[in-house]
Amino acid sequence: MSKVDVAVTIAPKEEITDQLKKDLIREQKSIDIIELRIDQRESFEIADLERLFKTLKDLQLDVQVLVTYRTSVQGGKGQKNGNTYYEFLQDLIQIQGYDMVDIEWDEAQTEILLQLIVQAQSAGLKVVLSQHDFDKTPNLEVLKFLYFKMNKLGADIVKLAVMPNEKQDVLNLLEALATASESIEAKPVGISMSHLGLISRTAQGVFGGIISYGCLGTPQAPGQIHVGQLKELLNIYEINK
Amino acid sequence: MSKVDVAVTIAPKEEITDQLKKDLIREQKSIDIIELRIDQRESFEIADLERLFKTLKDLQLDVQVLVTYRTSVQGGKGQKNGNTYYEFLQDLIQIQGYDMVDIEWDEAQTEILLQLIVQAQSAGLKVVLSQHDFDKTPNLEVLKFLYFKMNKLGADIVKLAVMPNEKQDVLNLLEALATASESIEAKPVGISMSHLGLISRTAQGVFGGIISYGCLGTPQAPGQIHVGQLKELLNIYEINK
Repeated sequence: MSKVDVAVTIAPKEEITDQLKKDLIREQKSIDIIELRIDQRESFEIADLERLFKTLKDLQLDVQVLVTYRTSVQGGKGQKNGNTYYEFLQDLIQIQGYDMVDIEWDEAQTEILLQLIVQAQSAGLKVVLSQHDFDKTPNLEVLKFLYFKMNKLGADIVKLAVMPNEKQDVLNLLEALATASESIEAKPVGISMSHLGLISRTAQGVFGGIISYGCLGTPQAPGQIHVGQLKELLNIYEINK
Repeated sequence: MSKVDVAVTIAPKEEITDQLKKDLIREQKSIDIIELRIDQRESFEIADLERLFKTLKDLQLDVQVLVTYRTSVQGGKGQKNGNTYYEFLQDLIQIQGYDMVDIEWDEAQTEILLQLIVQAQSAGLKVVLSQHDFDKTPNLEVLKFLYFKMNKLGADIVKLAVMPNEKQDVLNLLEALATASESIEAKPVGISMSHLGLISRTAQGVFGGIISYGCLGTPQAPGQIHVGQLKELLNIYEINK
């Protein structure tokens, strides 16, 4: 049984509104990580991003801030893809005021990814190397091999988020996660999206995963539930009786 | 996603106490089946059992009553084993006032089991054919084959309850349950016991199972949780969003 951190995904259009601040403060006891999505923004000026991160830090919550730019290729709103995405990440990594950065996996770009991961870690950031498939769940061997390949780049956390089309897909994701948790150095996260995959979010710790993503209001990914309920459900499976 | 009935397991020493009646009445909205264990009793006089069943029925709860004599061979307190157990079942089946009967699977006794199942069903009882392993979880193929073989005897429900020793055991039980739910006529139930297997109880419906067993106070099997909490957790996974 692994301890699971709850990450709340927020995606403010531009500024962090007073209402969002209130929500974060109200739910803070259920939150370990704030995943700040920035792909939906209009402005990516360094100064604007710095102010955004500072606003979060000034709330003085006992949380880590994970900054995520989710490209459209992996289900996000970010129009920066390929080299523009990597150049943006290079700038993002230089900005201060947050703790973790999400970098998307791409089999064809391991060299650039390796550099970015080293750069980010040298800048004191933890790296979540992530892979998303919003259409399907690859078969069990592909999932296991993905964790294995992703682990090779030395990221702190490797995250797979896939869409189940049947019960077996949920079980395959959980089996790949369990295997990874016992065989790779990086800490694994495995998410089977949508309602069918909900147990991957609530019983993430049973199978060795270390982060489960929830929301404050509107789910930011299929199957996300409110962080308060998510924390409660995670505790049910974690407490050793 | 299958609808899951919550069965509360009770094991009164002799009579159903006033406290137990109050507990059942208080929790009735979470209960679909009362599993009345009788193996812990001293008296098996027909008249005593009839009075016991009548007491339950007189509570007029909207529930089915499942009578279970769990032999010591399959983890219960019942000292009747082998032919004494089958003879007792023959008498039990003739008694009125309950709805379902649990009959334990035994690979070497399929003929007697077949007769008992037909007898019970002719007496208007639903039959739960059950197999328990409190030490281990057989491998995936054995689990799948067990459901297949048990299904052949024409019981209404086939139930496997096994003990996980590692995460893979939980996944194997859930995979066998999912496969059974899509391939056999009988309705399947699959339980991975202890705290490690808790998600098999709460997400039973995700994988095609139709009953989840909970308790009122002391767990009657490793990993059981209170029926009120169990019902709540089952609903989280069942509601289609």
